[in-house]
Amino acid sequence: MTLSTQPYKGARDFYPEDKRLQKYLFASLRKSVEKYGYEEYDAPILESLDLYLAKTGEEIVNEQTYTFTDRGGRQVAIRPEMTPTVSRMVAARRQELAYPLRWYSIPNLWRYERPQRGRLREHWQLNVDIFGIESEQAELEIISVANQVFKDLGAKPDMYQIKLNSRQLMDAIFTDYLGLDDAEAHSVAKLVDRMHKLEHAAFVAQLDAAISPSKRESGLTEKILAILAAKKLTDLPQEVQQHASSRLLQTVLDDLVAAGIGNAVFDISVMRGFDYYTGIVFEIFDTHPDNNRSMMGGGRYDGLVGLFGVEPVPTVGFGLGDATLANFVELHHLLPKLPTETAAYVAVLDGADVPTASKIIREFRDEGVNLAVGRYGRKLQEHFKAAEKKGIEQLIILGQKELDDNQLVLKNLATGQEERHGMTRIASLLQDHRRA
Amino acid sequence: MTLSTQPYKGARDFYPEDKRLQKYLFASLRKSVEKYGYEEYDAPILESLDLYLAKTGEEIVNEQTYTFTDRGGRQVAIRPEMTPTVSRMVAARRQELAYPLRWYSIPNLWRYERPQRGRLREHWQLNVDIFGIESEQAELEIISVANQVFKDLGAKPDMYQIKLNSRQLMDAIFTDYLGLDDAEAHSVAKLVDRMHKLEHAAFVAQLDAAISPSKRESGLTEKILAILAAKKLTDLPQEVQQHASSRLLQTVLDDLVAAGIGNAVFDISVMRGFDYYTGIVFEIFDTHPDNNRSMMGGGRYDGLVGLFGVEPVPTVGFGLGDATLANFVELHHLLPKLPTETAAYVAVLDGADVPTASKIIREFRDEGVNLAVGRYGRKLQEHFKAAEKKGIEQLIILGQKELDDNQLVLKNLATGQEERHGMTRIASLLQDHRRA
Repeated sequence: MTLSTQPYKGARDFYPEDKRLQKYLFASLRKSVEKYGYEEYDAPILESLDLYLAKTGEEIVNEQTYTFTDRGGRQVAIRPEMTPTVSRMVAARRQELAYPLRWYSIPNLWRYERPQRGRLREHWQLNVDIFGIESEQAELEIISVANQVFKDLGAKPDMYQIKLNSRQLMDAIFTDYLGLDDAEAHSVAKLVDRMHKLEHAAFVAQLDAAISPSKRESGLTEKILAILAAKKLTDLPQEVQQHASSRLLQTVLDDLVAAGIGNAVFDISVMRGFDYYTGIVFEIFDTHPDNNRSMMGGGRYDGLVGLFGVEPVPTVGFGLGDATLANFVELHHLLPKLPTETAAYVAVLDGADVPTASKIIREFRDEGVNLAVGRYGRKLQEHFKAAEKKGIEQLIILGQKELDDNQLVLKNLATGQEERHGMTRIASLLQDHRRA
Repeated sequence: MTLSTQPYKGARDFYPEDKRLQKYLFASLRKSVEKYGYEEYDAPILESLDLYLAKTGEEIVNEQTYTFTDRGGRQVAIRPEMTPTVSRMVAARRQELAYPLRWYSIPNLWRYERPQRGRLREHWQLNVDIFGIESEQAELEIISVANQVFKDLGAKPDMYQIKLNSRQLMDAIFTDYLGLDDAEAHSVAKLVDRMHKLEHAAFVAQLDAAISPSKRESGLTEKILAILAAKKLTDLPQEVQQHASSRLLQTVLDDLVAAGIGNAVFDISVMRGFDYYTGIVFEIFDTHPDNNRSMMGGGRYDGLVGLFGVEPVPTVGFGLGDATLANFVELHHLLPKLPTETAAYVAVLDGADVPTASKIIREFRDEGVNLAVGRYGRKLQEHFKAAEKKGIEQLIILGQKELDDNQLVLKNLATGQEERHGMTRIASLLQDHRRA
């Protein structure tokens, strides 16, 4: 039997050049969130299935989650998201932890997507959460952190837009202003979530179908469409604007502007798929026409920690996927050149004393110079080719003569330039080159 | 229903203090292997089950591997080791890659261990492999890399021992010297692998059972025991010492000594569990009496890439588990103090203008000073407590007076000492403190 060399369907192999991009992105994410005092945590990729049956969107557990029964008869899931896990971890040490608690993680998550849709089954997601702040200090900070992430990757404010809404505001609109019952409100909410993915006529037809015939006949569909046309909070009816949730949202938007974040707007279509959100929700959209979609989403979810039988903890957090982020930095040309960590390739020539050559190579490494050594017995041209293929620009040539004189050859494979120096000088040149 | 706050059985949650240790260890591992030009790769944690049915130890696939059928009817495994995956990835690009290829990864791996044995089901493992070198240049380098890993963690040579053996040498001993048939050789090899875990009498009894009655009666058990008593290659019978594999092993041992690695020895009991090894094999043992076990294992496996229907590639590699390594550094007191990434905690006092305070906090962050901000409206004593609980030593106090005068208070919570300076001076003090 010949084995397949393909990775599992819908998941990616990371060859060194792919991994280098991921490492660059993750290092930037870590740096951004650590500026705000967030600390990294992690957890097993397997969780008890119960964890996801509690209060996440049903769709995810039923159709998209990888579940199986382990050899001990336990129902297990491969985590589809990190929020239930982090809530579990906080609940486990509810009393001991110091609040506000600032945690982040970059877990890999799995969802069973149908292959033909070309969507990924495994992706990584930056998860950032603040626990223990009831006021909008939490929303302001979390959105500032998300903004920092984009800023530190070199993004300009016109490359992305931060869209905010409020679950409480939408509840007030659905229930108090529109008079929808629970089932109608649920259906309309799901529909609004997909508003920009549907043709207008189809959206209206589904809206009609979501409400009772009598309400439809009394013109409720038009009333819903009118309110969904609001572009800013002041477009909403006065009685809705007076609701506490509307005023809180306006405060957050104003404070974001005051904090220099001018690309944050109210967007009534931002609903967020998960049922656990309880307050302000937000998404960040790429403004590039080829990638005009949500890259990051989050919000306040004050109820999850309490599901574990402890006192609830107010929480605001977000998740940001690696694949959409990689698209973003590529489309906007934000990626710097990502060189290999290897400073130089070493060609040990035939006839050179290997123990002596090895000793010099060790000295380079002790000086912090990363060296890849070519296979002994190869021709110089073959070493050139191997180094170039690996993207290593500098080559050190060690023949017996070079070893005898401690005058090594440093060759720049891009320019063809050659220099002869002692080991210490070459180490110093290579270190300068790396820093440049 | 109240949900459990426990992680999945046999797997670990990483709270920030646990994650900090893991990050310290992994950063050290990356630095060590990158000195030798190794590049990081990664792959999905799920693989087709076929990958493990080919040539790994049978025990692993049957009893210890997490396997399930996905929603598309595919037989899937959660990877129990990385070697089949890396072989698959090399095979997929066999022609395009430049050799020698130096790759490393730190994947998480899963094995179904019975919970009562207290063993971990999920662990991380540094995997380091060199592809494309047939000569012992590969073994020498890979063992040097493994040694570098320990050296860079601060280990002294007497804290660990590198034990080498050769599969080819053992084949020669079993077949040519002892005259065992294939089935006997297989049984005896498995037994030698567990030699130090068995009582001597039990070992002899099982050895007796592993060979045919006629061979037993002609004294073969004693002959096997005699050869297993060899402490160095020169203790072996002359005809065995003359075998090419014995001379190669002696060359590698001599070259390691020449390279300053004096704690490498021949050990006839090192067999390695996997069937895919084809040449020299090695393990690194902790010499501490409380942790006297194998921490790292590896060897030459020239046949795996070829299983994918491409020309084989000579390969030498090793794996090093995170839990045993953490035990090692703790037992030998090699761990430095691991501080939080947060330079200071900020207490914004009641009455202070929040936008002005936020502006100064942003300036600190832009200067590369990581700050965690306490919850507004708390008392100063509460801020002290929260910062101390998080292990943050420095506190910045921002009241309206401090903001008006640009004279902020920097308080060292360990010593109680307070200083008043402008923002720039405090940023510089905190940066110096981090570097110290």
